[in-house]
Amino acid sequence: MAKKTVYFFGAGTAEGDMTMKSLLGGKGANLAEMAGLGLPVPPGFTVSTEVCDLYYRNRKRIPEAVKAEIVKNLRKLEKAAGRGFGDGRNPLLVSIRSGARASMPGMMDTILNLGLNDKTASALIARTGNARFVFDSYRRFVQMYGDVVLGLRPESQDDIDPFEALIEEKKKDRGVHRDADLSAADLEDLVRRFKAAIRARTGHDFPEDPMRQLWGAVGAVFGSWMNDRAIAYRKLYGIPETWGTAVNVQLMVFGNMGPASGTGVAFTRDAATGENVFYGEYLMNAQGEDVVAGIRTPLPIADLKKDDPKSYARLEKIRRILEKHYADMMDIEFTIQDGELYMLQCRVGKRTAFAAIKIAVDMVGEGLITEKEALSRIEPDQLNQLLRPVFDQAEKEAAVKAGRLLAKGLNAGPGAAAGRIVFNSVDAEAWAGRGEKVILTRIETSPEDIKGMNAAEGILTARGGMTSHAALVARQMGKVCVAGCGELLIDYGARTMTVRGRRLREGDWISIDGTTGEVIEGRIPAKPSEVLRVLIDGTLVPAEAPVYRTFAKVMAWADKHRVLKIRTNADQPDQAANAVAFGAEGIGLCRTEHMFFGEGKIGPMREMILAETAEARKAALTKLLPLQRRDFAGIFEVMKGRPVTIRTIDPPLHEFLPHDEQGQRELAAETGIPAEKVKARVDSLHEFNPMLGFRGCRLGIIYPEITEMQARAVFEAAAETKKKGIPVEPEIMIPLVGHVKELTDQEALVRRVAGEVMKEQGVKFKFLVGTMIEIPRGAVTAGEIASVAEFFSFGTNDLTQTTLGVSRDDAGRFLVPYVEKDIYPKDPFEVIDRDGVGWLMRTAVEKGRTTRPMLKLGICGEHGGDPSSVEFCHLIGLNYVSCSPFRVPIARLAAARAAILNPAPKKAPGRKGGL
Amino acid sequence: MAKKTVYFFGAGTAEGDMTMKSLLGGKGANLAEMAGLGLPVPPGFTVSTEVCDLYYRNRKRIPEAVKAEIVKNLRKLEKAAGRGFGDGRNPLLVSIRSGARASMPGMMDTILNLGLNDKTASALIARTGNARFVFDSYRRFVQMYGDVVLGLRPESQDDIDPFEALIEEKKKDRGVHRDADLSAADLEDLVRRFKAAIRARTGHDFPEDPMRQLWGAVGAVFGSWMNDRAIAYRKLYGIPETWGTAVNVQLMVFGNMGPASGTGVAFTRDAATGENVFYGEYLMNAQGEDVVAGIRTPLPIADLKKDDPKSYARLEKIRRILEKHYADMMDIEFTIQDGELYMLQCRVGKRTAFAAIKIAVDMVGEGLITEKEALSRIEPDQLNQLLRPVFDQAEKEAAVKAGRLLAKGLNAGPGAAAGRIVFNSVDAEAWAGRGEKVILTRIETSPEDIKGMNAAEGILTARGGMTSHAALVARQMGKVCVAGCGELLIDYGARTMTVRGRRLREGDWISIDGTTGEVIEGRIPAKPSEVLRVLIDGTLVPAEAPVYRTFAKVMAWADKHRVLKIRTNADQPDQAANAVAFGAEGIGLCRTEHMFFGEGKIGPMREMILAETAEARKAALTKLLPLQRRDFAGIFEVMKGRPVTIRTIDPPLHEFLPHDEQGQRELAAETGIPAEKVKARVDSLHEFNPMLGFRGCRLGIIYPEITEMQARAVFEAAAETKKKGIPVEPEIMIPLVGHVKELTDQEALVRRVAGEVMKEQGVKFKFLVGTMIEIPRGAVTAGEIASVAEFFSFGTNDLTQTTLGVSRDDAGRFLVPYVEKDIYPKDPFEVIDRDGVGWLMRTAVEKGRTTRPMLKLGICGEHGGDPSSVEFCHLIGLNYVSCSPFRVPIARLAAARAAILNPAPKKAPGRKGGL
Repeated sequence: MAKKTVYFFGAGTAEGDMTMKSLLGGKGANLAEMAGLGLPVPPGFTVSTEVCDLYYRNRKRIPEAVKAEIVKNLRKLEKAAGRGFGDGRNPLLVSIRSGARASMPGMMDTILNLGLNDKTASALIARTGNARFVFDSYRRFVQMYGDVVLGLRPESQDDIDPFEALIEEKKKDRGVHRDADLSAADLEDLVRRFKAAIRARTGHDFPEDPMRQLWGAVGAVFGSWMNDRAIAYRKLYGIPETWGTAVNVQLMVFGNMGPASGTGVAFTRDAATGENVFYGEYLMNAQGEDVVAGIRTPLPIADLKKDDPKSYARLEKIRRILEKHYADMMDIEFTIQDGELYMLQCRVGKRTAFAAIKIAVDMVGEGLITEKEALSRIEPDQLNQLLRPVFDQAEKEAAVKAGRLLAKGLNAGPGAAAGRIVFNSVDAEAWAGRGEKVILTRIETSPEDIKGMNAAEGILTARGGMTSHAALVARQMGKVCVAGCGELLIDYGARTMTVRGRRLREGDWISIDGTTGEVIEGRIPAKPSEVLRVLIDGTLVPAEAPVYRTFAKVMAWADKHRVLKIRTNADQPDQAANAVAFGAEGIGLCRTEHMFFGEGKIGPMREMILAETAEARKAALTKLLPLQRRDFAGIFEVMKGRPVTIRTIDPPLHEFLPHDEQGQRELAAETGIPAEKVKARVDSLHEFNPMLGFRGCRLGIIYPEITEMQARAVFEAAAETKKKGIPVEPEIMIPLVGHVKELTDQEALVRRVAGEVMKEQGVKFKFLVGTMIEIPRGAVTAGEIASVAEFFSFGTNDLTQTTLGVSRDDAGRFLVPYVEKDIYPKDPFEVIDRDGVGWLMRTAVEKGRTTRPMLKLGICGEHGGDPSSVEFCHLIGLNYVSCSPFRVPIARLAAARAAILNPAPKKAPGRKGGL
Repeated sequence: MAKKTVYFFGAGTAEGDMTMKSLLGGKGANLAEMAGLGLPVPPGFTVSTEVCDLYYRNRKRIPEAVKAEIVKNLRKLEKAAGRGFGDGRNPLLVSIRSGARASMPGMMDTILNLGLNDKTASALIARTGNARFVFDSYRRFVQMYGDVVLGLRPESQDDIDPFEALIEEKKKDRGVHRDADLSAADLEDLVRRFKAAIRARTGHDFPEDPMRQLWGAVGAVFGSWMNDRAIAYRKLYGIPETWGTAVNVQLMVFGNMGPASGTGVAFTRDAATGENVFYGEYLMNAQGEDVVAGIRTPLPIADLKKDDPKSYARLEKIRRILEKHYADMMDIEFTIQDGELYMLQCRVGKRTAFAAIKIAVDMVGEGLITEKEALSRIEPDQLNQLLRPVFDQAEKEAAVKAGRLLAKGLNAGPGAAAGRIVFNSVDAEAWAGRGEKVILTRIETSPEDIKGMNAAEGILTARGGMTSHAALVARQMGKVCVAGCGELLIDYGARTMTVRGRRLREGDWISIDGTTGEVIEGRIPAKPSEVLRVLIDGTLVPAEAPVYRTFAKVMAWADKHRVLKIRTNADQPDQAANAVAFGAEGIGLCRTEHMFFGEGKIGPMREMILAETAEARKAALTKLLPLQRRDFAGIFEVMKGRPVTIRTIDPPLHEFLPHDEQGQRELAAETGIPAEKVKARVDSLHEFNPMLGFRGCRLGIIYPEITEMQARAVFEAAAETKKKGIPVEPEIMIPLVGHVKELTDQEALVRRVAGEVMKEQGVKFKFLVGTMIEIPRGAVTAGEIASVAEFFSFGTNDLTQTTLGVSRDDAGRFLVPYVEKDIYPKDPFEVIDRDGVGWLMRTAVEKGRTTRPMLKLGICGEHGGDPSSVEFCHLIGLNYVSCSPFRVPIARLAAARAAILNPAPKKAPGRKGGL
């Protein structure tokens, strides 16, 4: 038996249902579902997505077997509709619509009114007595068919549509301005002119035979799956090419048949606020495209109660039936033909982040869904919209329309910010000091820029990726950031920035959208987070009580259902405090090197690096000790006994030295070291591949006095905190360990210092010593490493770089084309590469827990805030994920969803170890 | 029962034997063995190496239980010797000697004549009637004891030995020049003065009590295990600290008792040539140190037949007994005391590379050992001595003694070369053109230097590691190379090179030893390879028939016993021809990028890189096509059907462009492209971590036209070769694959081109498409990759860099201390890191062969020529190793030894696939 390829629906029954989206597409499956529910769906049939594949494999022809199926279903449709296709008295007209598994609005083609020709048009006029309606439908059909099937399209954006040109000509001839002012005769003449244009352009006549029309249209819809727009859209939203589209052939119903007809779109609840009200708009005597075109202003759906009380009542009933049936907020399309209501589409409605939360919470209250279902309805990434400032959408759209969009960079720190351009950190502080809002604009940032970054509304860089210094620090500070915007040509000397020939100067206003990466000229007003406000002193508070309560309820549910603990990456007390406000349960990564750029610390740090003897190095470190101790004490106080993982120094030392001649001369003057010696030291620290160079634990092994100072600062701070009666539990993390002996070396040193401090201070405190797993050898030998390490934290940024052999800073030239060519399904720096990096992580977890069953496992790479990666961490049995403070709520939700979707994760013994 | 810690030997029996080296040390085990064989060994006992550990754990004191054991054995020794320790009439004197499991000549301390004091000296004079002999022995003992046990040593190299100073003073007083001219009374006085000096320096009297002497001496020998020299020696030769030393206490016998006494050392065969003759030297009336000191010239052992025919006959007999018993060439020490022969030491004799081969071959002929034993006796690395030119050893030692050793770099290309310094490639070619021998001396080399490197005798660089460009290319060319010699300050402008303040100019003579890394001022004559000579045209021929025949026999045995095939890394026909002469069975790595620096190729290559459109790129590639085709055709002809693996372009494109302004200006002039555009392109190709950047298959995926040109050149050359009747089988290797889809992309392209060429040329040829496994993701996903790849070649240079997260170019700052601190047991770039990199290799082999059982597996990283790494490749079941041409014999031998030592390797199904 041949495989079933066509599915009928309507007249109270259906061969498909809503579960068959992959076969029937979203539209087809929902039409079948509605028909099955007995809702008024115009009958029709769906040609399955599998035929799309057959079509391409059959040299873009519909296979004969499928054609036979279509004809059989067409006969069934004629019977259901009581009309004949191409019939000279009572003709059947149909719509041909695409419908893929995932919604791809406007990407593929649609043809309405198919079945019209001179003969059926006459018949329809005879039946309706409305020649103008018939000729308007006819000219629309010919126009769509000419465009979609026969390819009569403008050749470029500057070209005019050939059909629109004829309409314009006609209106000019007739001295009218609106299409609606054209008469039936005018439209009839337009149909003739359209057909002539088709003949002239293609050398063929417009097909009068409805069956030829049908085959052409079905083929064209399949063909539109591979049009440029559709391909681009799929890339953007990660929709696989193999899915294909279905084709829906359905009885035409007309909203433009007269005053008792109409059409509309609606949401079963308010898609913007989530309120439980019927929300939508309609137009009487109109077709769907009129609602969209905006020539006539649609009316709010509530007005329909007055215009057509019967249809409104039916719609209200259908709204309730659908919500109950789908247990979700639905987006519907309907048409009223001569007082009769028809449902043309229903699907789960898109909504704002806040609406998503409100609807989910309300529906739990209404008993429609469970908490778990509610959580699985909210996309973690949507929370960004709630937590960060956003641009006024209308103002932003207007700016883009006005050509003020300058460039697009990487969306490195979500949120919206506007400010005046400054080109260095000193200016950023000075301008901000006198109350100006500034955007710190740099070729790239270095740790020296931290104070300027803190003073700025946002940060914009020309170079560097999603894990560049600017991006990392911005996310940690909660600053808006657009990074790696390669089109910016920044001239520090001239204090200008040029983008595609447009020059901006210091002090000019600029707006950056860190959620999208857009850089826009001028000032666009931003509104603060919908949920939280950051006060002047950096403290987070709830923005508006009811909104916050809804958010808090969702977070509470998430916390109830998740298995993973959530920590944050923070190195300052204020960052830590914000993270706790967001629900962080500990610090997973405190980067001590950022501290070296705080008040008064860079000087001794540089002295330390320039030192030529261990003694001179120790002298410089002695100056740093009290400063680092103060930082740690501040963090311990804020964290109140929650675990704090502190990483010993990690970056190559040259990052702390000035690379320009001027900076080196200044440093020479400050330190009294000859300038050529400073330069020689900077040069000697130069590395060909600093990512794989003298950094991480290698520094502490060669210069043990650095680790010693850092361990002492941590433990003295811990003793101090404990003496104040505040519990404290530091976890010392040694970075870049590839061989257990590296860890053994540093662990012995750390434990010795801990013992010394406890003795000196006369106080005992608990602490752990562990390591980052961030190079493949660390993962591969995790069994040995776990014999020393009390915890592992996966550093997936570096682990991805080394496992894939890809420097993120240099990957631009090939990583984007790689994702486009589908070599990597996603950017592996955004979403964990499960087969490569993930395989090593899983191996490390297994080997580590074999050696030490209660080994504590976490992740502190950027992936810790990515929902798919959080799910992976859940699957392999980690104890916690750690992410930047503003992503903590996202991680909480993602962890809950991971637990809900994967209800029986591998029970690793160590997970019981908790946070 | 307490553990046995002391083992007695002598008087025809022994508690130990030669298998107990780890417990008794080499010396103790062999003394016991000889005693057990009934050879005349002075009786004594060995305190085991385990006591060394106890000594250190017991705060550097000999445990009481061990002391008791020693006393018990001392009584046994007194009985065997028929004398009493400290006895006033017939005193027992003993020697105290160290003896570790591995020979550490001269590193630890020895004390002779122990047991002497004023009382026993008198007794000895009474018994021997030889006061001068007794006082000479006495003063030697006090001197040694003062030095070794009491620490009376020169404090620095400039200081004079306190005892020697007293001797000099004495000789001056007495107006004599030689020690031998001092009388018994003089020596007696010296003993007094020595003792006074000890009292003055230490505040204590010299111990007259023989037991106190014994405890001091045994403790001092254990203590010498941790002296600086011994620690440094162990590091150098990889001897673990945990082994410890044994202490041998043995009856003193005296070669200096009169004309019927004597002492000597000998080898059972000639250690230099391997000839089966008794070889050694002796001195009558002398102690061992006299033979070494060189004051009297020792006589050849043959003369002993005349001086003492009885002892000579006994020695000859012992020589035969030992060779038969040990089945090896032995190194022996003997003493004749008053006509009585004593054996003091025997051990396997060190030998030159050629002697090793000759002895092994001869012993097989004599039926003493099997072929397999013969192969396991020859260290693969020794073959370098045979295959490469070497400095005249005496001349080199004289130069070093004269302070002409300038610096030490990395031994990047073995062999010896002397020449005049030139600082650039153009000069190297010009000078060599007029018959000068030159050493190309560069800060670092780039592919542009290839012609200069070829013209030079050797290459010396200030920067770069063992896999730097200079090192890789030199080994492949068979050039002597010292790389990464950081102490050289090279000033190209001034044409000078400064080393620790010494300035050398262009044209000055310099000698470099690429086997040791030494850089020596002036010209040291080098002699050519003992086995092979390279003719002017680059062809290798046997140097001297008999020597070559022995070498060839060993190689033939190696070939018989090895399982691994041996290929070579070569990219020029002459390199390939040499490798075949060395026994290479194929090319495992032909780096196509080196070819781009040949005659006329760099121009179009640069054009290609500077091209702004695919068309311009193709035009440049069209120029390269015939040139590459010619290279490949040349290689195919030489290889005569042996497999040739050709890697598509691998390095980042910026390596092909000039980085200095002048070079860029010249390039601009050549190409007609504005200089600022050239600079902009060079800048745009700059990478932060080029090792992890835009290179390998990433180039071919983004610029498919490059792979297309290379594939076409290979296949057109294959077609051409086939048409000449020469078989050909290219293997196209895609580098840096981390995801199977990368390979799928390039494989499709290569197969398409192959099909096109076969059709165009009307000829069919076989070929394979495979990949390098050189990043961890490639190893981890080898199962998927093997679904496309027909072979894997492990690129262990890059795999080590990525797995360990270590850039070899930058590792100097920590890798050397890492090996010193025993974090890594060996430099992982020299010897495969089996636990990390090796684990990934093994994983890749298993996964790859699961997908494709007949998958061909090889290695083409530098490790392919390292014996330990070759063994590992054998163990994990690779099909072949590939190394530089001059290492092919080493790899053949190493592969045979691996097969012999591991007779039942895992039978991987694919190994049957052969080469």
